[in-house]
Amino acid sequence: MNNQHVMIDGQHLSIDQVIQVAVKKSEVTITDAAWKKVVDSRRFVEQQMDSENPVYGMNRGVGLNKDRKVDPAHFEGFNRNLILSHCISIDPESSIETVRAAMLIRLNIMLLGFTGVQPQIVRMYQQFLNKHLCPVIHERGSIGAADIGCLSAIGLAMIGEGEVYFNDECMSAREALRLSGLEPVKLGPKDGLAIVSSNALFVGKTVLLIHELERFLKQADLVYALSLEGFDGNVTPLHSHVIQAKKLNGQKVSAKLICDYLENSYLWNGHQRRNLQDPLSYRGAFSVHGSVRDALDYVKGQVRLYLNASEDNPAVLPEERQIISCANYEITSLVQGVEMLNISLSHMARIACFRMIKLANPTFTGLTRFLTPRNQDVLGFATIQKAFAALDAEIQDLCQPVSPHFFSLAGDIEDHATNSIYAVQKSKKIIENLYYIFGMEAMHAAQAIDLRGSIVLGEGTKQAYSRIRQCVPFLNEDRNLSLDMQQMYTLLQESKLLINVMKADV
Amino acid sequence: MNNQHVMIDGQHLSIDQVIQVAVKKSEVTITDAAWKKVVDSRRFVEQQMDSENPVYGMNRGVGLNKDRKVDPAHFEGFNRNLILSHCISIDPESSIETVRAAMLIRLNIMLLGFTGVQPQIVRMYQQFLNKHLCPVIHERGSIGAADIGCLSAIGLAMIGEGEVYFNDECMSAREALRLSGLEPVKLGPKDGLAIVSSNALFVGKTVLLIHELERFLKQADLVYALSLEGFDGNVTPLHSHVIQAKKLNGQKVSAKLICDYLENSYLWNGHQRRNLQDPLSYRGAFSVHGSVRDALDYVKGQVRLYLNASEDNPAVLPEERQIISCANYEITSLVQGVEMLNISLSHMARIACFRMIKLANPTFTGLTRFLTPRNQDVLGFATIQKAFAALDAEIQDLCQPVSPHFFSLAGDIEDHATNSIYAVQKSKKIIENLYYIFGMEAMHAAQAIDLRGSIVLGEGTKQAYSRIRQCVPFLNEDRNLSLDMQQMYTLLQESKLLINVMKADV
Amino acid sequence: MNNQHVMIDGQHLSIDQVIQVAVKKSEVTITDAAWKKVVDSRRFVEQQMDSENPVYGMNRGVGLNKDRKVDPAHFEGFNRNLILSHCISIDPESSIETVRAAMLIRLNIMLLGFTGVQPQIVRMYQQFLNKHLCPVIHERGSIGAADIGCLSAIGLAMIGEGEVYFNDECMSAREALRLSGLEPVKLGPKDGLAIVSSNALFVGKTVLLIHELERFLKQADLVYALSLEGFDGNVTPLHSHVIQAKKLNGQKVSAKLICDYLENSYLWNGHQRRNLQDPLSYRGAFSVHGSVRDALDYVKGQVRLYLNASEDNPAVLPEERQIISCANYEITSLVQGVEMLNISLSHMARIACFRMIKLANPTFTGLTRFLTPRNQDVLGFATIQKAFAALDAEIQDLCQPVSPHFFSLAGDIEDHATNSIYAVQKSKKIIENLYYIFGMEAMHAAQAIDLRGSIVLGEGTKQAYSRIRQCVPFLNEDRNLSLDMQQMYTLLQESKLLINVMKADV
Amino acid sequence: MNNQHVMIDGQHLSIDQVIQVAVKKSEVTITDAAWKKVVDSRRFVEQQMDSENPVYGMNRGVGLNKDRKVDPAHFEGFNRNLILSHCISIDPESSIETVRAAMLIRLNIMLLGFTGVQPQIVRMYQQFLNKHLCPVIHERGSIGAADIGCLSAIGLAMIGEGEVYFNDECMSAREALRLSGLEPVKLGPKDGLAIVSSNALFVGKTVLLIHELERFLKQADLVYALSLEGFDGNVTPLHSHVIQAKKLNGQKVSAKLICDYLENSYLWNGHQRRNLQDPLSYRGAFSVHGSVRDALDYVKGQVRLYLNASEDNPAVLPEERQIISCANYEITSLVQGVEMLNISLSHMARIACFRMIKLANPTFTGLTRFLTPRNQDVLGFATIQKAFAALDAEIQDLCQPVSPHFFSLAGDIEDHATNSIYAVQKSKKIIENLYYIFGMEAMHAAQAIDLRGSIVLGEGTKQAYSRIRQCVPFLNEDRNLSLDMQQMYTLLQESKLLINVMKADV
Repeated sequence: MNNQHVMIDGQHLSIDQVIQVAVKKSEVTITDAAWKKVVDSRRFVEQQMDSENPVYGMNRGVGLNKDRKVDPAHFEGFNRNLILSHCISIDPESSIETVRAAMLIRLNIMLLGFTGVQPQIVRMYQQFLNKHLCPVIHERGSIGAADIGCLSAIGLAMIGEGEVYFNDECMSAREALRLSGLEPVKLGPKDGLAIVSSNALFVGKTVLLIHELERFLKQADLVYALSLEGFDGNVTPLHSHVIQAKKLNGQKVSAKLICDYLENSYLWNGHQRRNLQDPLSYRGAFSVHGSVRDALDYVKGQVRLYLNASEDNPAVLPEERQIISCANYEITSLVQGVEMLNISLSHMARIACFRMIKLANPTFTGLTRFLTPRNQDVLGFATIQKAFAALDAEIQDLCQPVSPHFFSLAGDIEDHATNSIYAVQKSKKIIENLYYIFGMEAMHAAQAIDLRGSIVLGEGTKQAYSRIRQCVPFLNEDRNLSLDMQQMYTLLQESKLLINVMKADV
Repeated sequence: MNNQHVMIDGQHLSIDQVIQVAVKKSEVTITDAAWKKVVDSRRFVEQQMDSENPVYGMNRGVGLNKDRKVDPAHFEGFNRNLILSHCISIDPESSIETVRAAMLIRLNIMLLGFTGVQPQIVRMYQQFLNKHLCPVIHERGSIGAADIGCLSAIGLAMIGEGEVYFNDECMSAREALRLSGLEPVKLGPKDGLAIVSSNALFVGKTVLLIHELERFLKQADLVYALSLEGFDGNVTPLHSHVIQAKKLNGQKVSAKLICDYLENSYLWNGHQRRNLQDPLSYRGAFSVHGSVRDALDYVKGQVRLYLNASEDNPAVLPEERQIISCANYEITSLVQGVEMLNISLSHMARIACFRMIKLANPTFTGLTRFLTPRNQDVLGFATIQKAFAALDAEIQDLCQPVSPHFFSLAGDIEDHATNSIYAVQKSKKIIENLYYIFGMEAMHAAQAIDLRGSIVLGEGTKQAYSRIRQCVPFLNEDRNLSLDMQQMYTLLQESKLLINVMKADV
Repeated sequence: MNNQHVMIDGQHLSIDQVIQVAVKKSEVTITDAAWKKVVDSRRFVEQQMDSENPVYGMNRGVGLNKDRKVDPAHFEGFNRNLILSHCISIDPESSIETVRAAMLIRLNIMLLGFTGVQPQIVRMYQQFLNKHLCPVIHERGSIGAADIGCLSAIGLAMIGEGEVYFNDECMSAREALRLSGLEPVKLGPKDGLAIVSSNALFVGKTVLLIHELERFLKQADLVYALSLEGFDGNVTPLHSHVIQAKKLNGQKVSAKLICDYLENSYLWNGHQRRNLQDPLSYRGAFSVHGSVRDALDYVKGQVRLYLNASEDNPAVLPEERQIISCANYEITSLVQGVEMLNISLSHMARIACFRMIKLANPTFTGLTRFLTPRNQDVLGFATIQKAFAALDAEIQDLCQPVSPHFFSLAGDIEDHATNSIYAVQKSKKIIENLYYIFGMEAMHAAQAIDLRGSIVLGEGTKQAYSRIRQCVPFLNEDRNLSLDMQQMYTLLQESKLLINVMKADV
Repeated sequence: MNNQHVMIDGQHLSIDQVIQVAVKKSEVTITDAAWKKVVDSRRFVEQQMDSENPVYGMNRGVGLNKDRKVDPAHFEGFNRNLILSHCISIDPESSIETVRAAMLIRLNIMLLGFTGVQPQIVRMYQQFLNKHLCPVIHERGSIGAADIGCLSAIGLAMIGEGEVYFNDECMSAREALRLSGLEPVKLGPKDGLAIVSSNALFVGKTVLLIHELERFLKQADLVYALSLEGFDGNVTPLHSHVIQAKKLNGQKVSAKLICDYLENSYLWNGHQRRNLQDPLSYRGAFSVHGSVRDALDYVKGQVRLYLNASEDNPAVLPEERQIISCANYEITSLVQGVEMLNISLSHMARIACFRMIKLANPTFTGLTRFLTPRNQDVLGFATIQKAFAALDAEIQDLCQPVSPHFFSLAGDIEDHATNSIYAVQKSKKIIENLYYIFGMEAMHAAQAIDLRGSIVLGEGTKQAYSRIRQCVPFLNEDRNLSLDMQQMYTLLQESKLLINVMKADV
């Protein structure tokens, strides 16, 4: 897969392509037409740099220092200082995938021609990606009105300072450049700003989140389907006429998937003892999962725009022969989507907890209390409820929005922000907790299925059941459940529950 | 306008039509095809009611009592008890517009034929709307998994109990029915559930919110445009090529509107003393307003689905000859949109505050401190900052999501909820605060414009300026500003700032 | 009770005395020693006013205008402008009790001699209290770093402008002064600041909150005791040795009170069928109530300090012959206590809900489902669960802290705030919801007791039971429960549940 | 210091002693009187174990299984299963200090005689502490109604299963017991519950938090004092008469400490150019720090109670010859204090940020913009504002309360919780961020002092200044500030700023 090329032109970068390059490390090529735009844009910048026309961050300072003229003789020094003074971020370190995503996104947008960066730097992004140089970025230092305090680390590496991972080994940038046959760049006018003034870290993290979440949602639908079988729940809410009557996009997808997973399941054969209708956590779960999909659709729609839209300020417009101050760094529409997604995920988490509580309750299942194999002396899945409740409480806390927490900075100039990075870090923590929670639900479901004895599982759930049982055996004695929980976490985190379930889809 | 008819069929109800009926009190007619569906659906229900086939809420109880059989002889009593025992809501009272919206929405969905309600009740909704009977509904009693504890008041009125507004006068339902020549309905099987089991109150409130917000957003763009003129701010970020480069939908709309408002403004003439670039609260405001529009678009998209989609549980499927338990009460996709909208509005509020702080700061404006007309003895717009800061703090609090706050009810059956009504009540409070905040910004902008002396305003802002000055005169002496703030609140709340600005648009 | 006098000296004002004056309208007298301090302090101010020594808000401006000199000839105009320009608050209106509490607190602190206000104004506060003039104050306009934007209304009334309630009738201040034989005051140096620069509105609201909460807590303990009887719960957790072993202050008080209420109850007779131990919502409720008491103790401790401590800035120190800038307006220690209290109250609310859920559950009680009098056709307390769940969700939202939501104002000078007023308004809303919730619990408890038949209630709970049954009869048929809920709300809100229960204590 | 003994008896354990044992690894001895209580209590339990009298968790099951009888022949198996099935916690791992604190606290409380645990287990706690065996505990698995899902790991180790740190090396418990000459315990009746049913993990973490916070607060006061010198701020608010007038406890402590640090500082010499009064972030910082101290005092008061109070359920009362169900696991009063503390810390964080913004602003300081050493080409402390703003936004998020997020578990029996562990984990994260923020403030303060040239620093601040300058030199060129920030973080985190400042106090 590594030998696939991803061709970019600033206008058509897709979420899948970002994953292709960031995770699967495909090579990146640039279209000729796009390259021409970069060159033209730079030519215009060079024509302007001596002009009396003040341009922010080019022949004038940045931030409050926008009133200070930059002497063309000092462009290199000025831009180097800009990079250095913007190195203000602290732990945690970004993953290599994240940094690759960020570099690709920034690179792609530079091809639109609004940046005016020197072509050599554009090439450097491409080389870093293709030669596997990955600057060490720390994530706390952005308030989400462009990630300038984090992306500076890329500039630092390009001038041969700071640290990079080269083929996954951490070393000085100077050494890595040498080993990969690259020369440090010499910064010119506007280059510093071109490198730092971007939301690429946030957008990159969001793309990775989307990728992770899509795989997780398929597994969540699968665990829910298995849970329905363990519960002996009603499948009438999945009836196609009913789903059609509702029209909601996300829930259509989840309902379809769940029906596929449950193909040939015993659940489709109605029987007497089944409850007339089930608790909402069973009845409506596909719809709540669908709501997460709806939120995710909003996020994806925004990401697609941001992947291919200028974020440069000032924007270079060579054809209009202008370089103008603008607001293209603004990212609120995407951040608010991530925050909606976090809220949405909290619903998914909570009702999964409530489904486990039901599975442990004989009144609902007709099975043993806490799914114990032996009432008299095995406690079974009793205390484990505290584990998922604790994780759910964290999620409820994590889903609080953070974008509103900002104040005025930089001489009162930077008086809007979004805390975008923190918002998506919280999404990531929520997913981590969801792996545990759905892992525990899978443990409950498999145990209930075993206790039920000979029931016919669906085509997909059958596979999932086997996979789970490869990880954790039937609970026939009390044992240290932390170990089982950890196993299941890993299974879901690596998307292995889908193996043999959805063809070619992992 | 009142003599316009709105024709409904369950499938094409629009946001505008809800406003037409709810606010402007248009008459409602039902298509013949839709009416036939209602009749057919009911016929099937009546065939089923004696059957041994247990159907939730029809020949079986509701909630945990779903295990209890209902004797056909007791259908009326059972449904009356159902209505009565669901009267559990408390203050505040819904507005008449809200209740009308809810009744129309519920009526429209009944026409899809999934409800199986008796046709007489369907007619009753229509009559209530057309004869201006409006049951007294209280809003706290719904947890947002259908508004059953609130909508029961409609059923109560239909059987001649409780209270209604008849032509805006509050009276007993019995009296109102008599005066309007209506007979109380006699409830039959499934009728109780048909009336209460719906999210119509929430969706109705959301439609009214959308309507209010759309008018507000136009005014907010207008106040911002005026503020730009008072500030002598840069308009380069509104440059069409830059907006095109960004591609975001909402900000395109706001940018276009602001450019229209500012047509012929002095701001388009660049001049020397203007700052190289402005604080983000000025530079990016159209984009932040655009983010609100993006959130609103998500909400509108969902509302359009919910206006014409079945929410009935159980769903009656006459053609399949089934009545099945389902999850069509689920409303999360819309609620999460409302919560995103609340977050989005908080950004809009905060940066409006920050714009006022800048307008009061001579370093940014070159005008007097706190826009005082006389430095030596008038304090001007100093303490007023506390007023908008206090309102902004409330908004920051109000924008916290509430949908995650739920637990299990009703014998552990109702274990998902969304607190939908509370979420949209919070939206409403946020808008109320925004009227004040943007009213204060308009006061600041007009004062700054006056202090600037002879500047040429835009075509739209010129009208807005005059309208403001009709409400509050130039501040030439310290005076009780609470009174001015109240005037401006009313102006915005009644959308009067748009008079003569946007043709035929108020 | 009205003819009781409250004597104040700036140092010994108690919470009870504030209630005495604010609610019961007792007369206020000032000690001679305190009066002398006022006079001495003012004399020193007058000596200083012409001096070259700049003093904030006296011979220099306020806020950012602190760099501007005030000409002694303009002291009156300057102070009048200060009052006017500080009138920036909006709805809601404070209650008369609140304004009286605020005036008393401000008056008392003036007696410490750090204010330097003219004695005539001190007398004016006293006269307003004793002659029942109550300025109309609006509450939104304070950010909780002194309530200057609200308290300005008192100054306005004192100079004969704005509106006041005179013997509960709203009229112009001028008219009210005339009717009560008072002359408007003529403001001198520092007087404006002396009037507005105070947290008296917040502290006053907090005192009223404490008063209300103390009465509520007694009732909450009582409802819980009744609920225990309805539940047939274990009283072993109240065993004195166990309580001693725990040592917590608040829970000792609640446990003692509950034991008193339950004196002679059938619960003290152990019997077989009782559960081995009860759900935590029953077992630990006295402790959770005790935690509210612990939080309240913290708040009361702080209030006692704030009632008798200088909040003046600048502080006048006649003996040191200095007037110095200081931070005595700071109120965070109290506000954080109010926010802790809100959190604490949310626990109390939630477990009350959970107790009701248990009372409705035959598995726990051995009684009927939803406490219905007739299983076959009365639904009973089923849907009402949505009402308390909705109120609980609001409380969970309301208990979020708001003090952290602040930013820089007033030329970056006012860069700390606490949103104190909003915090305590939220407490008030929480209590309102708690009246409803505990009202519903009382309904459940009484119904369970009736269903249990002949059981012997405790000495206190017996009285409470009768009182409840005077409001709402046994639920023998489904009926509109909203009306019952409203009755119970009023009973608790007026503290009437305690009648005949705690002697002389209401 | 290691050879100090800490003698415990269940009644007098102090916060300092917990630190002594947990951090400094002092030996623990038990008084004879206390030991006798343990023995007596156990003797009574053994007498009761065969009795027909059902006792929760002894001869009956735990949780919902409280209705199941435990056969005395199976006591060991039952208790082993109890321990195993309670192993449900996941990462992060507790620190060794934390586990030692938890073991000591649990041990101390066992000495009160309410536990009824076998003496051998009591000795085992003592041995684990004195022989440096430390079970591996994971922290997520408690909902804060006793930490049963975490503390099970201690029981696991005692029976020779799971893992422990032995002299800081991780190994199997079996091996560690062997190496230290200990035999695994054989569990008897009530022993499982005795080990797990405790809040010792939370209380232990809180004690460590207090310890860390106290050292931090001294440093925070010191950094603030230094900042005042860099700012050339007013010290009048620290005037002893003014502080006396306010009476607040916490602020007295901070004010005193700051005055000590500033002894002989140039700030005490008033001069003309100083501002008449400073922004609140300077003027009131000692008071806001004091509010943190007030919150901390509340927490310490509660901790002292919890360190020496029974938390056992059921409680064994040998003298009354009873074993009774109770609520002594309740921990809300302490948790709400921790949540208040978190709110309080957020104020401290925010105003530190605002002080840095002021230090970077020439209007306030008369120094260079962003404290640059050279206006023309060094950017200085400009972008770093994004770093502290990002950390502050996290704190604002972290200070949200989490204790209200709970629902019903364990067959609806466990329907109250506090999420205590998560609450104190959030405190810890807040402090981590505060180390960075105050580290950055120290960098600003030292830079401002250098730019001011020859000013005389206070006795304490002088030492602090030197210490800072050993870590980070004067910023004379732009450099990678992340590295400086990291240095300062470590300095504060290790409390090294206090070296030579407060004698014997680190």
